[in-house]
Amino acid sequence: MNVIELSPPYLIFLGDVTDTTYAKTGAGLAQWRPELCLGQLSLIDTGVDLGLPAMTVAEAAAAGARSLVIGTASVGGGVPEAWLPTLLEAVSVGMEVVAGVHATLASHPALSAAASAAGVRLVDVRVPPVGIPVASGRKRRGMRLLTVGTDCAVGKKYTALAIDKAMREVGLQSQFRASGQTGIMIAGEGMPIDAVVADFVSGAAELLSPANEPAHWDVIEGQGCLTHPGYAAVSMGLLLGSQPDAFVVCHEAGRTHISGWEDFPLASVDQVIARTVAAGAITNPAIRCVGVSVNTSNLASAEVAGYLSRLEENLGLPCFDPLRQVPSSLLQTLQAMTPAASGLSSEEQENSL
Amino acid sequence: MNVIELSPPYLIFLGDVTDTTYAKTGAGLAQWRPELCLGQLSLIDTGVDLGLPAMTVAEAAAAGARSLVIGTASVGGGVPEAWLPTLLEAVSVGMEVVAGVHATLASHPALSAAASAAGVRLVDVRVPPVGIPVASGRKRRGMRLLTVGTDCAVGKKYTALAIDKAMREVGLQSQFRASGQTGIMIAGEGMPIDAVVADFVSGAAELLSPANEPAHWDVIEGQGCLTHPGYAAVSMGLLLGSQPDAFVVCHEAGRTHISGWEDFPLASVDQVIARTVAAGAITNPAIRCVGVSVNTSNLASAEVAGYLSRLEENLGLPCFDPLRQVPSSLLQTLQAMTPAASGLSSEEQENSL
Repeated sequence: MNVIELSPPYLIFLGDVTDTTYAKTGAGLAQWRPELCLGQLSLIDTGVDLGLPAMTVAEAAAAGARSLVIGTASVGGGVPEAWLPTLLEAVSVGMEVVAGVHATLASHPALSAAASAAGVRLVDVRVPPVGIPVASGRKRRGMRLLTVGTDCAVGKKYTALAIDKAMREVGLQSQFRASGQTGIMIAGEGMPIDAVVADFVSGAAELLSPANEPAHWDVIEGQGCLTHPGYAAVSMGLLLGSQPDAFVVCHEAGRTHISGWEDFPLASVDQVIARTVAAGAITNPAIRCVGVSVNTSNLASAEVAGYLSRLEENLGLPCFDPLRQVPSSLLQTLQAMTPAASGLSSEEQENSL
Repeated sequence: MNVIELSPPYLIFLGDVTDTTYAKTGAGLAQWRPELCLGQLSLIDTGVDLGLPAMTVAEAAAAGARSLVIGTASVGGGVPEAWLPTLLEAVSVGMEVVAGVHATLASHPALSAAASAAGVRLVDVRVPPVGIPVASGRKRRGMRLLTVGTDCAVGKKYTALAIDKAMREVGLQSQFRASGQTGIMIAGEGMPIDAVVADFVSGAAELLSPANEPAHWDVIEGQGCLTHPGYAAVSMGLLLGSQPDAFVVCHEAGRTHISGWEDFPLASVDQVIARTVAAGAITNPAIRCVGVSVNTSNLASAEVAGYLSRLEENLGLPCFDPLRQVPSSLLQTLQAMTPAASGLSSEEQENSL
């Protein structure tokens, strides 16, 4: 499969960060893929603690770590000098080094030379693989759910991860598919969809969720939103290439305008549903909205239940905060949509949950 | 302005092509920008004749040509050996060499070295400029018309060129803005929008039609279509960044399915209008369809008038074949939309045409 692929298990590198806010990638990995995280390495005694065993590079290598994953963003953008001895040590013992946002590894001469000499990869998850084709539009076997949004940064990745986990817990076959940098770190593979040349965005989305068993679900991390003045092209391309059977709209309660584009009012959830159905039907006429995921962190605790039940009443769809629970009604819908193991579709399974 | 810019006037290079079908770029330049084409150079006696004076490189240079434009596609893709002496001669006399589809200049070692030694540019119009920002979505001064389509290759470039020409002929301020390779050759500048990374497509479209005088029109060449399973992301990004006040839908009479994607039926013209208005309104709520351009080459000559008048009756919009004439009703609409020189908008001008 022509996507980025990482080599687990990992040593999570935390630099000299003291606040988890700046170690989101590391924290995401520790939360969602703890079984792949052998340990953490901070350069300072007061560094962020993800709850993983503290390890040196040598200890991690001895324990079997195959990659050092940079779990934090550097402020300036490049690779800080203070990080270099650790990264070079990792390379020297044969570990791959993986970077997400704000750190370009291959352009660092010393690191690049060391990696080349040691024969190990430097993996920049922002760089798409080569050879991505134009989308064919052809329907692929298997089921797909895409998270879409009313804006950027409303919980599309988190929602996809939470739904994927909940689906597996009730016995559905599900796989999280990552379309962004942190998601790719967590999934161990994926496609940095916003970095793909426009002609090939939908083709990249097709590669990201290839044909699979009829009852298998890909739960695909969405990007941007269809009404975004800057990023709608990304959202459009990802939607058409994903060919989702189901989608979940992600929204932040209380947000009224596109974040960073304050002249642009947010579309309502039902407007986003209508636009997503209209566009998504081009490659999958059966597309339907199955729920709404709400980041309720701006609401007082006492307001949350009322907000969600009002929204649920208005839309006639399960509405939930993914930090709390993925509702069984959503899982029942997805189970009902899942073809039976025989390969036949079966609404009949609905009551088996 | 951060777009590709060429250096006219041109010597049009035609290789060993004997059929105008394979010299579309050269033919387009000779048709739309004859004043910039000093001459043509064919490698064979029986080559394509664009009606320009035959010139050697030395003659063209003496006449003031600043660029040799490769006006034909090579079959294989690279730079054919037979072309090389001519291209090297052009470089040696200080002419820039410009290539569109299927010829990568900078990757040819001998040509690249010669250009570097001579201090001249090799311009590949498929390669976007660096430093394209994310779109701001902010409204820019000036008026804009975008050609959109029911499919690829339905006449969006030709229609934009024809409307631009007709607008200037009736005294409107208009400029053709090119978003594709051949269009960039003709315009002498532009943005290869489909080669831009997805995050920056709308930003590239904003660069392509920068702020201008209130009464000035940019007539922007569209790409792809919003219902295309492969290219909708490009169309979406171009639409939102262009912020068109007006758009013209381009269609080929008789086409029923997306060309090359035969499982996908073409959307109807009115569906394309509705989708374009819905998406375009995100960055320009005043967007409206002002006409439909039809490639009628599949119709018998006697059928054309009836086809266009039926379409016109159904849609209530000027419908025309741009090979024949841009109708005065369309030009009147555009004039009525144009703010008066005072800076005030004026429906009052409508009858002045």
